[in-house]
Amino acid sequence: MHGAKTRTIIRNVLIMTMKEGDRPFRGDIVLEGSRIASVGPSVTSQHPGDEIISGEGMAAMPGLINAHQHSPMTLLRAFSDDLKLMDWLERKMFPAEARMTEEDIYWGAQLAMAEMIRSGTTAFADMYIHMEQIATAVAETGMRASLARGLALAEDDGGKRLAEGWDLIERWSGQANGRITTMLGPHSPYLCPPEPLKELIGEAGRKRIPIHIHLAETVEETAIIRERYGKTPTEYLHDLGLFDEAHVLLAHAVHLSASDIRLLRGMRGGAAHNPVSNAKLGCGIAPVAALMEQGVAVGIGTDGAGSATTLDMFAEIRAAAWLQKLAAQDPTALPAGRALRMATAGSARLLGIDSEVGTLEAGKKADLLLIDLRQPHLQPLHDPEAVIAYAAAGGDVDSVFVDGVPLMRSRRLLTIDEEKLLAEAAVRAARIVEGV
Amino acid sequence: MHGAKTRTIIRNVLIMTMKEGDRPFRGDIVLEGSRIASVGPSVTSQHPGDEIISGEGMAAMPGLINAHQHSPMTLLRAFSDDLKLMDWLERKMFPAEARMTEEDIYWGAQLAMAEMIRSGTTAFADMYIHMEQIATAVAETGMRASLARGLALAEDDGGKRLAEGWDLIERWSGQANGRITTMLGPHSPYLCPPEPLKELIGEAGRKRIPIHIHLAETVEETAIIRERYGKTPTEYLHDLGLFDEAHVLLAHAVHLSASDIRLLRGMRGGAAHNPVSNAKLGCGIAPVAALMEQGVAVGIGTDGAGSATTLDMFAEIRAAAWLQKLAAQDPTALPAGRALRMATAGSARLLGIDSEVGTLEAGKKADLLLIDLRQPHLQPLHDPEAVIAYAAAGGDVDSVFVDGVPLMRSRRLLTIDEEKLLAEAAVRAARIVEGV
Repeated sequence: MHGAKTRTIIRNVLIMTMKEGDRPFRGDIVLEGSRIASVGPSVTSQHPGDEIISGEGMAAMPGLINAHQHSPMTLLRAFSDDLKLMDWLERKMFPAEARMTEEDIYWGAQLAMAEMIRSGTTAFADMYIHMEQIATAVAETGMRASLARGLALAEDDGGKRLAEGWDLIERWSGQANGRITTMLGPHSPYLCPPEPLKELIGEAGRKRIPIHIHLAETVEETAIIRERYGKTPTEYLHDLGLFDEAHVLLAHAVHLSASDIRLLRGMRGGAAHNPVSNAKLGCGIAPVAALMEQGVAVGIGTDGAGSATTLDMFAEIRAAAWLQKLAAQDPTALPAGRALRMATAGSARLLGIDSEVGTLEAGKKADLLLIDLRQPHLQPLHDPEAVIAYAAAGGDVDSVFVDGVPLMRSRRLLTIDEEKLLAEAAVRAARIVEGV
Repeated sequence: MHGAKTRTIIRNVLIMTMKEGDRPFRGDIVLEGSRIASVGPSVTSQHPGDEIISGEGMAAMPGLINAHQHSPMTLLRAFSDDLKLMDWLERKMFPAEARMTEEDIYWGAQLAMAEMIRSGTTAFADMYIHMEQIATAVAETGMRASLARGLALAEDDGGKRLAEGWDLIERWSGQANGRITTMLGPHSPYLCPPEPLKELIGEAGRKRIPIHIHLAETVEETAIIRERYGKTPTEYLHDLGLFDEAHVLLAHAVHLSASDIRLLRGMRGGAAHNPVSNAKLGCGIAPVAALMEQGVAVGIGTDGAGSATTLDMFAEIRAAAWLQKLAAQDPTALPAGRALRMATAGSARLLGIDSEVGTLEAGKKADLLLIDLRQPHLQPLHDPEAVIAYAAAGGDVDSVFVDGVPLMRSRRLLTIDEEKLLAEAAVRAARIVEGV
């Protein structure tokens, strides 16, 4: 007799486990409660009460994990594209963000989650303000997230923000059936002076709290830190003990010297590559190959919709591969399978949840997606990994499960009232940017 | 009284004409027979027999025009990704292509057309072999195309191929209600020696036949032409009189010096930018801004699915913008509206059909698409051009019209038997690569 938990069998599906060395194969995936019970050949015997999902014409893979973003910025999507970085930030983003209410944050985050679920993302790392609103939306939509209150420690009210950061950790860590985890979010080397940052790092180390921080996104940042402290941004963080003390999620990591990369060797956590945002803002191409050579885990994120415009991780996967090939002038750089692993198992390591998600294997949480391959742009299937990495888009995702719960089936969202959401988002977005 | 032709009114749609200087506005588009009768505010009076399409929640724009590709290569999609360029060509593409029959060409082309229509492409320029098969598929699917038989004039049977190239022009130019146009297709500087190429250029000039040719795709090509003739590939073509004699569609145009670009000033036709293929094969980023500064028209193409993997022009539009911003380290480079114009009006100039298509205006052919904006990733709509350029994907296209005829409505293809096509493509693709 099988247990009392609901059992779902996804039958005869093309399985991409994303475990290192595994090749796609046809088989069954069995979900029991919130976990994957088995992944194997199509021979699963059926019990009364089992739900059967036909995987015919579909590929199954672990849910995509967006390793860095700012979810409520969906309300500022395409509000100010194609501007110089400082004009974009200071004339547009900051004034608009200052007009966002707590409720706007909630609806912006929900809009991001609707987009993420529709494009196959099951988990994400988020750094913003009013994080309890985002946590509430995560709990309701059924997604998985690592949340951090962004901390500009240089500001007058840095102390108040820090208190909010700790409050988030105390109140929300482990909530929503364990789907919510938390980090401390010191914003960046340029917004966090040495004294308060060193103190934060020490406390994070003692309490074993991971840290989410921006690093070396622009050449300007490198120049600022060099002028202030005579160091690279990476050296600055290293010298404050960051990489010894804590599990660290580094966002961007574009402008790293060879010696910077050696300083990251052995770090817990890793770097979130944001290829689209970095290209679109003219920042550069992160040294992904060099980071991986030093054993640094690399995941993929979108950055906020304010810069990347879309949260479609398939667009990021492709862009990551293209840009590494371009930078190396070598079409063998960052092959398809590795790009897909970055966006799943790689990102999971950065969020510190790789023992639970990131690959399809028995015992892990049932976070996965089904892609509908019966479409002209995904045929023929000489190499499913390459087809999915280079030709699939978010709109090809048919179904999404998190913790064994279906969040989308046949492209219908099951935990979000999409019509109401789009109406709320339109009104709020218009109000926020009025006069900016 | 209105005429006897079928009249279709697309009502209350967000119209992006893509005419220089036009901003998106809400209005009606009236189609009469194969042409656009009017584009304007939503005040069109309805006549008995008019078909009304609600444009609520939709954007209308001119059909995308893929300015360079090799359509039957869809059968080799993801067959050999992530290889060195010469391994890819010589160990994989050439042996597989040699096994393609005329029927394979037909079905591969039809697969490409299914993908193109589904992703909003209405016209394309194609260079391949057995072009009469592709022409047949164009006639059947209702698309618009500029076809050229690829001519490796250096080969022993160059004369036979050239005869096929002329035969295509004589038999197919102007066919399918004028939807098919033709060009001569000398492959590239490195596969076309000076004598036969000069002769071809002279004859093309006398007969006013346009020319489709690859130029300066790789650094290797530049080195080869330098060694053979002591010139750049562009100088080589210029010195043979190409840019004086003919309307020319240059594919790739990646490795151009400043003086090469000056040689192109005033050319008829222009350059087809293939950002994804050029990045994915590690070739480089074409100097789009410098070409435009010299008044050279620039369009966008995908190259074959063998290299680009997908024919989704929305992916190319985004990639074009990202890569120009990255190359210039400037987020203001190639803004959204310009990237969209490249893929519509720009490509139309390259194909020599800009008096008929490429913008939405009264009198032009009714080649257009409707995008469904009522989706989380396309909301809110602060800037419709930026949302569509940076966040839309082929799967967001709801309807496609060519010559006033609907080829897709509500994502259902109307001129292609998709189920039969996918089955044929799978069997043929498997046979072609067997043992390669």
